[in-house]
Amino acid sequence: MKFSPLVQELINSLKCLPGVGAKSAQRMAFHLLERNRIGGAKLAGTLKVAMENIGHCSQCRNFTEDDSCEICQSAKRLINQQLCIVESPGDVIAIEQTGEFQGRYFILMGHLSPLDGIGPDDLGLDILEKQLATNQFKEIILATNPTVEGEATAHFIAELAKKYQVVISRIAHGVPVGGELEYVDGNTLSHALSGRKSYSF
Amino acid sequence: MKFSPLVQELINSLKCLPGVGAKSAQRMAFHLLERNRIGGAKLAGTLKVAMENIGHCSQCRNFTEDDSCEICQSAKRLINQQLCIVESPGDVIAIEQTGEFQGRYFILMGHLSPLDGIGPDDLGLDILEKQLATNQFKEIILATNPTVEGEATAHFIAELAKKYQVVISRIAHGVPVGGELEYVDGNTLSHALSGRKSYSF
Repeated sequence: MKFSPLVQELINSLKCLPGVGAKSAQRMAFHLLERNRIGGAKLAGTLKVAMENIGHCSQCRNFTEDDSCEICQSAKRLINQQLCIVESPGDVIAIEQTGEFQGRYFILMGHLSPLDGIGPDDLGLDILEKQLATNQFKEIILATNPTVEGEATAHFIAELAKKYQVVISRIAHGVPVGGELEYVDGNTLSHALSGRKSYSF
Repeated sequence: MKFSPLVQELINSLKCLPGVGAKSAQRMAFHLLERNRIGGAKLAGTLKVAMENIGHCSQCRNFTEDDSCEICQSAKRLINQQLCIVESPGDVIAIEQTGEFQGRYFILMGHLSPLDGIGPDDLGLDILEKQLATNQFKEIILATNPTVEGEATAHFIAELAKKYQVVISRIAHGVPVGGELEYVDGNTLSHALSGRKSYSF
């Protein structure tokens, strides 16, 4: 015996969400049906509109329903002529929350990963080159993840950006604030040592 | 800085799912936007139809888009005149998978919980009484969860069903198959001992 066809279809559809298997999908379906039909109906509406209308910003590739996103529309963001290259829209939020960066972003929406068939074209590097050619940035900051793929992607972009006469920098590797030295891995620690700074009094 | 309004709305809507907080909702939204727009659109459609059309079976209270569910429609299910009372639709599936039960079900959609304001009315006990009065069951099996609330609910229903002259039984408590005696809690173990059965040769 199974659930009624429509209930089963709902459970199957919910499985398209990442990290949601058969059991979680069942729990979600029952929760919505039993306790939050209004929320479920609202989610249905938003999901439909979002899937149809959200595209990529023509300049930075971030998700937006307009042609270009809020940051790219802002003239202020061009003043200090910096471009920060990150892997995902979540990284933009994380960097914005620090309040340390006032320039523009470019979102790769992934990293180079030949095994998964993700090459330079999939990361929108042609759009990036157009940005570099037209906007006269002084510095590009490579803020891809400190993983093997992230490092490889950063290197690839550094090579590509050479010819535009900009300063190319990579975010610092080192010990995270609040961590304990004893538990930091050797690789990070050697980065922290080699990247040490002199105290300036 | 926030996400664009529509992206933010999508993330907020996804938070209505149980066990999904801000970070998971963001991950789900990005996953759907980046990798599975078709799945997202399908989910939106199914969700809308499901929220509008799925109701409760008029006889057993299970979720169904019809007036009564598949099990209640089947005449075969009435032959052995047994009624199994469970807390949730998931329990029906679990019992059906054992293949041990051929009767009908009644789903409480919860358990008595005075602190949460869930009383007998919310469990559809009036529909249950109507079932007992009209269908002439020989036995009702109380298969609520072996928790404090489940036990209390079972007792309450047992009291209520007394007057219908049916056998009222409760599923057995004891050591789960495949477990190790050493790690079974004392309460379960005393149930297992007091409920022991003689070998029949």
